[in-house]
Amino acid sequence: MTQTSDIRVAVSTVIFSLRRLPGADAASVVLPLVRRTRDPYEGRWALPGGWLDVNENLDAAAARTLAETTGLAPSYLEQLYAFGAVDRSPSRVVSIVYWALVRPDEAEAAQAQHNVAWFDAASLPPLAFDHSQIVEYALWRLRNKVGYSRIAHGLLPEEFTLAELREVYEAILERRLDPANFRRQVENSATLIPTEQFRTGSHRPARLYRSNHDLELADRGPLPR
Amino acid sequence: MTQTSDIRVAVSTVIFSLRRLPGADAASVVLPLVRRTRDPYEGRWALPGGWLDVNENLDAAAARTLAETTGLAPSYLEQLYAFGAVDRSPSRVVSIVYWALVRPDEAEAAQAQHNVAWFDAASLPPLAFDHSQIVEYALWRLRNKVGYSRIAHGLLPEEFTLAELREVYEAILERRLDPANFRRQVENSATLIPTEQFRTGSHRPARLYRSNHDLELADRGPLPR
Repeated sequence: MTQTSDIRVAVSTVIFSLRRLPGADAASVVLPLVRRTRDPYEGRWALPGGWLDVNENLDAAAARTLAETTGLAPSYLEQLYAFGAVDRSPSRVVSIVYWALVRPDEAEAAQAQHNVAWFDAASLPPLAFDHSQIVEYALWRLRNKVGYSRIAHGLLPEEFTLAELREVYEAILERRLDPANFRRQVENSATLIPTEQFRTGSHRPARLYRSNHDLELADRGPLPR
Repeated sequence: MTQTSDIRVAVSTVIFSLRRLPGADAASVVLPLVRRTRDPYEGRWALPGGWLDVNENLDAAAARTLAETTGLAPSYLEQLYAFGAVDRSPSRVVSIVYWALVRPDEAEAAQAQHNVAWFDAASLPPLAFDHSQIVEYALWRLRNKVGYSRIAHGLLPEEFTLAELREVYEAILERRLDPANFRRQVENSATLIPTEQFRTGSHRPARLYRSNHDLELADRGPLPR
């Protein structure tokens, strides 16, 4: 039996938020990347992450990584996949990858960290290692999951209008949704609770909703917490 | 930064098949377990698995493990989750867990391996490590996945009747399904292709169907193959 002491375990996190990019008329999915300061891939952008500490649980390592990068606790954090191809790095590294959602107001208020920048998920530069593949898979999971859970609420403040919720879906799915159909679908879904508050401004007043916290953001089954 | 050389990486596999257990009038979900021959947990049953080889991809390690246990190639093999709690083993082990489906006829024809036995998933003995939790999570994933994919076909031969397909669903979901409703749902799903063959026997002839191989057993998105 081959010893595994030459295999190291890292944890990386794909952190999604929303941002209205300069010149854009709608929000985009954005994620923070870290510029590498050493080989391999020195100068390239990479997912935030680090080595798993021997006394640290996997999800604790992911939360630590996220806090170190964005200074934030996520509204949603879930294990995505373990990437372990032999050739993904010059040395043998198995990366346990998590993905997280951070609310736009929290992401923008976060202290800017050295060597960290947020990028539009739809137009990333070439990334280090297999991180482009990892982001692509995380985006696929996010798009899938908005279809059958209330995960999109993790990108919104406590109270929001249906138009704001629709903008989240449109950013994730990268297409426009019919407002009337969208309203009908979410109103029938039991994921939203109407409040007696309204958003007023240049448009006609729009009712504020809040998320039904009796439902998990997404069902993760009997995983240990 | 703490060195990670004290963390070892293992791969384990939850291998599901179906079997009509003695005295039962319907099929049950069964899985193979290996009796441990050394500490920790000597004598306890555990999931088949082993250490990741430094020159071996994760899915190759899972397939090897499965072949060593059952002598078989699975009809479906997917990564389930990475389990890495600090206290799950006396030494620090991160286990990348896969789950697999093996057809009943293949499972029964497989050479019996030393220290391996198949168990009813609904009544397992206490398992080593956190393997009871892992099996519970794998069963949850299997039950979820039959709802939105044609994964159940991975437990059937090339051609099967609707009653045989319904028996697979009933074993996984652990409840009876209405035959007429079931027939309507699967006939509307585009996952089945009717053949001109019929199963004859003591009942009236039942049409044989085959799975639509244009659809993946389950959509795994842009993961590297």
